[in-house]
Amino acid sequence: MNRSPIITLTTDFGLADPYVAAMKGVILSLNPAATIVDITHQVRPQQVAQAAFLLAQALPYFPRGTIHVVVVDPGVGTARQALALATPEILLVGPDNGALSAALPEETRRRALPGPDPRDFELPEGYRAVVLRRPRYMRQPVSSTFHGRDIFAPAAAHLSLGVGLEALGPAIRKVRALPPFRARRRPDGALEGHVLHVDRFGNLVTDVRAEDLPAGRVEVTIGGQRVEGLAHTYEEGPDLKALVGSAGYLEVACRGASAADRLGVDVGAAVLVTEGVS
Amino acid sequence: MNRSPIITLTTDFGLADPYVAAMKGVILSLNPAATIVDITHQVRPQQVAQAAFLLAQALPYFPRGTIHVVVVDPGVGTARQALALATPEILLVGPDNGALSAALPEETRRRALPGPDPRDFELPEGYRAVVLRRPRYMRQPVSSTFHGRDIFAPAAAHLSLGVGLEALGPAIRKVRALPPFRARRRPDGALEGHVLHVDRFGNLVTDVRAEDLPAGRVEVTIGGQRVEGLAHTYEEGPDLKALVGSAGYLEVACRGASAADRLGVDVGAAVLVTEGVS
Amino acid sequence: MNRSPIITLTTDFGLADPYVAAMKGVILSLNPAATIVDITHQVRPQQVAQAAFLLAQALPYFPRGTIHVVVVDPGVGTARQALALATPEILLVGPDNGALSAALPEETRRRALPGPDPRDFELPEGYRAVVLRRPRYMRQPVSSTFHGRDIFAPAAAHLSLGVGLEALGPAIRKVRALPPFRARRRPDGALEGHVLHVDRFGNLVTDVRAEDLPAGRVEVTIGGQRVEGLAHTYEEGPDLKALVGSAGYLEVACRGASAADRLGVDVGAAVLVTEGVS
Repeated sequence: MNRSPIITLTTDFGLADPYVAAMKGVILSLNPAATIVDITHQVRPQQVAQAAFLLAQALPYFPRGTIHVVVVDPGVGTARQALALATPEILLVGPDNGALSAALPEETRRRALPGPDPRDFELPEGYRAVVLRRPRYMRQPVSSTFHGRDIFAPAAAHLSLGVGLEALGPAIRKVRALPPFRARRRPDGALEGHVLHVDRFGNLVTDVRAEDLPAGRVEVTIGGQRVEGLAHTYEEGPDLKALVGSAGYLEVACRGASAADRLGVDVGAAVLVTEGVS
Repeated sequence: MNRSPIITLTTDFGLADPYVAAMKGVILSLNPAATIVDITHQVRPQQVAQAAFLLAQALPYFPRGTIHVVVVDPGVGTARQALALATPEILLVGPDNGALSAALPEETRRRALPGPDPRDFELPEGYRAVVLRRPRYMRQPVSSTFHGRDIFAPAAAHLSLGVGLEALGPAIRKVRALPPFRARRRPDGALEGHVLHVDRFGNLVTDVRAEDLPAGRVEVTIGGQRVEGLAHTYEEGPDLKALVGSAGYLEVACRGASAADRLGVDVGAAVLVTEGVS
Repeated sequence: MNRSPIITLTTDFGLADPYVAAMKGVILSLNPAATIVDITHQVRPQQVAQAAFLLAQALPYFPRGTIHVVVVDPGVGTARQALALATPEILLVGPDNGALSAALPEETRRRALPGPDPRDFELPEGYRAVVLRRPRYMRQPVSSTFHGRDIFAPAAAHLSLGVGLEALGPAIRKVRALPPFRARRRPDGALEGHVLHVDRFGNLVTDVRAEDLPAGRVEVTIGGQRVEGLAHTYEEGPDLKALVGSAGYLEVACRGASAADRLGVDVGAAVLVTEGVS
């Protein structure tokens, strides 16, 4: 473990309340040398899949050894377990509700059927997980409503100090996983996907991946409109356009305006991608 | 003073404007090793009591020696004084308008009558305060509208570098204090409190403290509705529920929804807690 | 270059999306010792002039050697160039669209005519600029839609590590510049200005500078109302008042309320300052 490790935070706490600051205070009390980076605190309340998706967009740009904490946790204090997870590259801490899916290989996640409930899957080779159960690595007393402060923040801080994963609790081999963010291919070759995220510009980020796009002319149907061809930049081409965004997902954007407003669609809206007869 | 001290910021500046960044630039120009942590910048404009409450929720999780800066300051540039305050544990910097109340012992604050105006109170043993008056510890020229940048940020930075409290200005023995955040007990034993804060989830955080709750079955009346019993988690029990939140205050919450929206209440709404005949 | 350099970020990305975090991950991967400070991420989408103005308000409070990154970049991926700019004091990185104007001397900017399009101007003595073109100092592959992550963040990180400006690409002598934020003086001596920014309090920050104000009694006309005289603080004087704000610009403010709401005006509204017959 290096001396100034990075700990990232992804939550649905917002920035108006003192919850994020309490977590940072707990981390810095244990490890004053930690570098804390906010991924986002504006996950829609209790939207675990959105948290996993947003973290997945930022995660590849952090160095090996980074510790990612995710606290989107509608089941806090119930039977759901608290996890720490080690991949060959990084560490993650959070509830066992699918929020840590961003770090699981697609192979594992492919076995999760689409649907509202994440399911248990065997961890692949090289991945380790423990259930956070050792009181000495928690803040005492542990509240039943704020495990971010009392369990997850201390676990991340102890990991950043070099405490071994296995010291934090008993090992498990199965964790919850969300299906991959990837549109379904129909028998006729068309892709049936959804809007995963609407960003600040109103760009509609879908689960259609660049590598799944047809080789020929791309036609995108969304919100009752058809968009033809792929633009390279937000500025060029027709006002309403499709393009591959910086994370490798198909986006629908509108020059100088919000595509979400223009089309009247939000997260969850269906998108259909076919190959045109160009 | 340690070498990488923590300085926290609590303001009503928001994050869209450059005011918070200007304060951070001033601090880092004086002490490049300071670790700056945002508590919140979304205090409702000029709501001193909300600032004190939000800081009080985060303050216990920061280490000894932390310097907390509060800039919610409707009277900036007027006769109100600028303070630095040392408790046996921590340092605080801000206007003398009650914003620093979070660090004063309840004993002192109990003498403040409830009402809109904070009043002057004698500091208890072990507490010291000075009026910030030494130009050499301010940024020059001092504006009449932004003491956060010109007086409070430099004072915090100098304290973090080991400058003694008394170097910053003349000592005083009386500071302004808000009454404790604690519901009033009626002669019949019922508790009359108020909503202090509505968090991002729409949870209604009240000034009814866990230790004041009746020993028997708790009944909470708020917004014309009665809620019976205490839940342990946000997920369990009836949709609309009362529970003790992570800071030890009674909250009214709604599973998967906003209790504030459901009940149509906001900060200041009355809450009544009685003991039921369970 | 010092060992723990400050890198500031000014963008229109907001804080809900993972874009800012991706930039921070890229910077910290290259230079773990960098201190990253957010100026603001809430520039209105693609409003280059607002970005330049907000950075100009914070920039004077950061130390020599600070590296300021601005990513408000509607033309990302098109022919507009990516720049690094060195002034005698600081470094800046961003698109060549006027966003870096905050660091250019007024002399240079005065030659830019008012209007929507920034124009090319010769850099003054002591200023150097390069076009970011060396792939080894970019993140690979470079996307066509997110140069903040792939070009600007890496450039800032390399500069913070001591890489020389000239190593990043070929030198140029002309960059785009916005006209100064300064009201026009009419032949009769009156000042015709505009609202540049509305802050969180609803204060209307104009481009009328303190040093241009008439020596006698100031009269301000805005939103169909006339405000007479200058207040010294937000608290004193009449409810609706004019005062010189902390950055040296004339503001119109309203005690305990939003002047923007009261007057029904927004960014771009005209303001007229004349000398009264006091």
